[in-house]
Amino acid sequence: MQPSGIITLMSDFGLDDFFVAAMKGVVLSINRTATVIDITHTVSAHDIFGAALTLADCYAAFPEGTIHVAVVDPGVGSERRPILVESDRYFFVGPDNGLFSFIYEAETIRRVIHITAHRFFRQPVSRTFHGRDIFAPCAARLSEGVDPREFGEPITDPVKLTVPTVEPFGEKRLRGQVIHVDRFGNLITNLTAREVPLDLIQSGGALIVGGREVSAIRTHYGEGREGEVFAVIGSTGRVEISLYRGSAATILGVDRGAVVELVFP
Amino acid sequence: MQPSGIITLMSDFGLDDFFVAAMKGVVLSINRTATVIDITHTVSAHDIFGAALTLADCYAAFPEGTIHVAVVDPGVGSERRPILVESDRYFFVGPDNGLFSFIYEAETIRRVIHITAHRFFRQPVSRTFHGRDIFAPCAARLSEGVDPREFGEPITDPVKLTVPTVEPFGEKRLRGQVIHVDRFGNLITNLTAREVPLDLIQSGGALIVGGREVSAIRTHYGEGREGEVFAVIGSTGRVEISLYRGSAATILGVDRGAVVELVFP
Amino acid sequence: MQPSGIITLMSDFGLDDFFVAAMKGVVLSINRTATVIDITHTVSAHDIFGAALTLADCYAAFPEGTIHVAVVDPGVGSERRPILVESDRYFFVGPDNGLFSFIYEAETIRRVIHITAHRFFRQPVSRTFHGRDIFAPCAARLSEGVDPREFGEPITDPVKLTVPTVEPFGEKRLRGQVIHVDRFGNLITNLTAREVPLDLIQSGGALIVGGREVSAIRTHYGEGREGEVFAVIGSTGRVEISLYRGSAATILGVDRGAVVELVFP
Repeated sequence: MQPSGIITLMSDFGLDDFFVAAMKGVVLSINRTATVIDITHTVSAHDIFGAALTLADCYAAFPEGTIHVAVVDPGVGSERRPILVESDRYFFVGPDNGLFSFIYEAETIRRVIHITAHRFFRQPVSRTFHGRDIFAPCAARLSEGVDPREFGEPITDPVKLTVPTVEPFGEKRLRGQVIHVDRFGNLITNLTAREVPLDLIQSGGALIVGGREVSAIRTHYGEGREGEVFAVIGSTGRVEISLYRGSAATILGVDRGAVVELVFP
Repeated sequence: MQPSGIITLMSDFGLDDFFVAAMKGVVLSINRTATVIDITHTVSAHDIFGAALTLADCYAAFPEGTIHVAVVDPGVGSERRPILVESDRYFFVGPDNGLFSFIYEAETIRRVIHITAHRFFRQPVSRTFHGRDIFAPCAARLSEGVDPREFGEPITDPVKLTVPTVEPFGEKRLRGQVIHVDRFGNLITNLTAREVPLDLIQSGGALIVGGREVSAIRTHYGEGREGEVFAVIGSTGRVEISLYRGSAATILGVDRGAVVELVFP
Repeated sequence: MQPSGIITLMSDFGLDDFFVAAMKGVVLSINRTATVIDITHTVSAHDIFGAALTLADCYAAFPEGTIHVAVVDPGVGSERRPILVESDRYFFVGPDNGLFSFIYEAETIRRVIHITAHRFFRQPVSRTFHGRDIFAPCAARLSEGVDPREFGEPITDPVKLTVPTVEPFGEKRLRGQVIHVDRFGNLITNLTAREVPLDLIQSGGALIVGGREVSAIRTHYGEGREGEVFAVIGSTGRVEISLYRGSAATILGVDRGAVVELVFP
């Protein structure tokens, strides 16, 4: 796979501090022609699951050969491994703590490399900022065409998060959960259109979340009615619970982790 | 008009989620050499007027041929039209909901196109995220030199917001309003240097806002005095009400929409 | 020194408004091939010291010949001078108010120029937004290779902030202070590994901050223990006070400016 020359960055560093700029400086000092794109840097501190999900939702929009760097890294400086994941379409660089859990499911993985090649690191390597000292320089080298196998040995046991699954529950019920709340207060669930056949709901089924029965299905946000809570299939294929021109999260008083039950008619 | 290769993005998507990154990925997947610049993504959710004003205040700083994409789109998925506006200097792409109201006034418009050419869209087109599926790919095609007329048919009735105007009021008074509050708490009004001759105010006139009479005129923020509320002509030509090293919005207790009266001497 | 073609931007303009985009537009209108990178734009309003420190912590990660533009400028429009600082590796452009205080110490300065060459400014020059009208266009010209001496005359008295120093205090004590709190609540101090020999602390010494005696030294954040407050050498060489998986700032109730005492054994 030919690198696209694009490197994306994601972290929980926030936008107020020097961290993100330092990573970009390091990248451009190695590969002046790299195109650096931010995914987000306001992941909640240490929220590996949230970062993993956000990456999963947008990595494939980028050209093949793009290098995605994700640094949510509470274990920085410890024995946790820096890794490079190569699928048949993309590269991923970051700590081995589960950040790429969704990638392992969605992509055809060629190899996962434990990054150990100190010659590619920024020197001296700090114990507290591997984003700048290991991940950024390795991504930059990779973007120049360095072979992934030069960064270290392959491993077969990368860390994978336990991703919440949809489970049958009682008679005619499925139980999933809210896995994300977006800026508009939409509740993104781990149910997809596959588990939630829209016609079933419209013929008497319902979703139950935060003590509320949701039986209205809409095709887009603006189709809702004043004050209505409804379900919609979001842009990544997941079922979302929305409030017309308002925040479903606020009105239902629920947050990430809340149970969502699907009741068949 | 030759595209400059620059595409700006503005939205109410916030910076925490995958939305903005997905748009950038789509753009770069089509035109790898495009330069993508963020205007802002923290427009208040669904605040079309605020977005329109912010765009109006900076679009002309960009090179001619720049493509400005604005996605504040509460009607996404409904019948509201996706449009492409071509002036004699710039392109604008987004939903037809008034986002380009100030542009229609300020620019010489060549054509407004109702975007219908599905062949330029990302497939499948979701009902909830046209930023990624319609606006980003069309902007990318446009940046490659595709003729605007290939995107659809011209329309003559684009949606225009009612922009607050300055009105005479009683004897020797004008009534305008606060149309924006900036990060520093400056109150940006819809009065301009044309309506507010500085010498008139200095010879006994005043601005009244939030129950306070403001009769001091300063040429720049730092010219104020401790605790002083004063008027200044801002960098876009609008009259601003400022507090020396503080927030006029907070001390006067006013927000966007507040009435501003100009009393002539 | 050859310009790298990279221009970084830092300001207290926030990310909600048109200010940053206007600066980028102006840069690209002059030098279409410049690479513009944000350092941060969420410096607290008028916080010159905070901006100076953030710049100091990352400017050297960029390629030599990079132009760093910093605009925290409460004196905009007044007599304060716009300046261009040229070291043997980098250029710095901004108001002469102390923003480059750390740079004067860390870099070998070739010259400091008082920018007066109106022919490089955006016209008309506003009295309230020199970021757009003076600093951005001058940086863009500089990135094209214009000689720094063309921008004005050299000066020898640029404004320097009083940077808090580490002082001896009583017997066997040093007194420094918290100069920054990062997103994770780590307290960044002005003590460095030079003043705080780790072995001294581990053999009975301590740091005292917010009424708490901190005697644990860790090499990285993840090495701490549940609920433990500890010291760590951060990625810029400064001593930081951290709470394991939490905010030291919150638990100790301290903020920037808090005294940190080092007690030798």
